Formats: sequence, C-alpha cells, structure tokens
Amino acid sequence: MEQGQVGPTRIVIAVNQSSLKGYPHPSISSSNAFEWALKKLIRSTRHKDFKLYILHVQVPDEDAFNDVDSIFACPDDFKDLKNREKIKGIHLLEYFVKRCNEIGLACEAWIKRGNPNEVICNEVKRLHPDILVVGSRVLNQLEKVFVGTVSEFCSKHADCPVIVIKRKPEDTPQNPIDD
Amino acid sequence: MEQGQVGPTRIVIAVNQSSLKGYPHPSISSSNAFEWALKKLIRSTRHKDFKLYILHVQVPDEDAFNDVDSIFACPDDFKDLKNREKIKGIHLLEYFVKRCNEIGLACEAWIKRGNPNEVICNEVKRLHPDILVVGSRVLNQLEKVFVGTVSEFCSKHADCPVIVIKRKPEDTPQNPIDD
Repeated sequence: MEQGQVGPTRIVIAVNQSSLKGYPHPSISSSNAFEWALKKLIRSTRHKDFKLYILHVQVPDEDAFNDVDSIFACPDDFKDLKNREKIKGIHLLEYFVKRCNEIGLACEAWIKRGNPNEVICNEVKRLHPDILVVGSRVLNQLEKVFVGTVSEFCSKHADCPVIVIKRKPEDTPQNPIDD
Repeated sequence: MEQGQVGPTRIVIAVNQSSLKGYPHPSISSSNAFEWALKKLIRSTRHKDFKLYILHVQVPDEDAFNDVDSIFACPDDFKDLKNREKIKGIHLLEYFVKRCNEIGLACEAWIKRGNPNEVICNEVKRLHPDILVVGSRVLNQLEKVFVGTVSEFCSKHADCPVIVIKRKPEDTPQNPIDD
C-alpha cells in the first residue's frame, strides 16, 4: 500500500564535540546516536528514503573557557576567537558528512551558536523534520538539578517526534561526565 | 557500506482503546503513533527491514469501571468479566494486525494486564527491541501531577530508544482528555 509519501523522511541530528578529547572528535553520545540512526532507522539498503540534517550548536561560554590563555587586545582578537571556534566546529561536522557521503546518504550540516536547548528547538520549528535524534550522557546530581540534559529538554519541547539514544554502559568512560 | 545488520529493526508499539468510543476502536494517539511509524520509519518500500510488536496493556481497574452494570454472583462471573475484556482487547489488536497484513509487514500482537508503565518497560526488558513507539495525549493539570503520562514514564525508564508521537492539534477532540 502506498503511504502517500512525497519526499524522504527528514531526520535532524544534534551533534557535539567530545568533552574529553575536544574538537574535532565527536562526543561518545553523538557518535552513538549517529551510528544508531544509520543502523536501525536508515539501514544499509534504503539511503534514498532519508535525508540527514546535522546540527552542531556551539555554546559561547564554553568557547571562552577553552581559550583562557588567549590575550585580547582589540576587537579583532575576539573575532579571531570566534572564527577559530567555528573552524573547529566545521572539522567536527566534516566527520559526520564524510560518513554520510561514504554510504550515499543525502545530508546537510551546519553550525549555530547559542543555548543548545533553544537553538535545537528553534531549528526544529524552522525545518519541520520528521524526527529529531539526540544522544544522551549521564549527568551528576548537581547537573541534573541545575542544568538537565539537552535530550530531556528537547523531548519535552521540540515540535517533532524525538528519539533519545542513551549511551551504552560499555561506552561510559571512567568519569561518567566525560563524553 | 554494510552496517552488520542481521535481522530486521524490531519496533514495539504500545496501543490502547479509545477513551471516547471504547473497544474495539483504537485511541487517537495510538492510531497516530502506528500510522506515523508506518509512514515515516518503515515507509512503503521497506517492510522486509522491520518487524512490529504490538502490545496492548489492559488496566484491571478500568475494566471494573466499564462494567458497573454487571452482576456478580459467583467466582465464574469474574472470570467471564476478564474473558469479555480480553476478547475486546483482541478486537483492538485485530485492527492493527490487519493493517500490517495488508501492507505485508511482519508483526506479533499480544495483551498483558497490569500497570501500563510497568508492563511496557518489562516487555521491553524481555524483548530487547530497537525502538519503542508510544502515542501521547494531552493531560489536564491534575492528571499531570498525579498520573503523568505513560509516554513520559517510558521515555525515562524503558531500556531502549523511545519515540513519543504527540497528538496533532487537529486531532484533539473538544475535550482534550478524550482519546
């Protein structure tokens, strides 16, 4: 039976860098979520039925923290800082786009700056995807109370069905907040 | 590229009866979740790649409430009540199994009795599916505080990725708790 499908199923996946190794390495949870989507949703035989939208949100505060050794003397120094961060983000996206290209899966990847919760939900509003895929890592008690996870926020607030891929126990590093 | 897939992607979907029309009619939210899975995940060309496990949980208390007019005179009367309920549940499952058969999608359907939250999570533990799909309806404030939704519970506690399909605004009946 035909389901009246016009285009491919459009999946947005939110990815970020490894908190342990930094750019350009993807976090364990985003890498897991990506591989899960390929294996279980998209599967090897049906790449034409899907399009992947790969979104990386850069958090301005984290950027500043990563550059505590920088010296700022003029407005251009801040511009350089932003550009350097952006380039690092591009290298992260390269990893995912390469994987999609290898298997012939259509994709688009881009970077946004801001609060991941808000940015992801806004991008979902803008793009109207069929599914949002997000990875999830383990939080410590303090983070649970004050931050919560991006995956929890998006599950509640994103305007499309959301799949949260929890990190497998065997992938958890010694310090569970490393990702 | 081969993803090392052995079998089909196994999807558990939890379905229930319409709160408005009763058995054998499926609730708006489970019917939506089912159709969404067919259209967006399984798609018309990929039936061989998926298997659907259709679980209906009957809540013992609700059964009693539906049978306020029954007269109970001996233990067998209660047995009859349970059997009648089970038969109604089977008619509900028939709807979904028929749809799967029409489109050549492999499926299994079964009934369990108990608390939907616990039963669904236990069945996920037992079956190790790749995805759990649940529909979601709108709760009133009181229900939010005291009951919560099955979809919220399963998102947090089920041992597999969960997709919650929220009811579309245009499918919401005049009284939003009708489903």
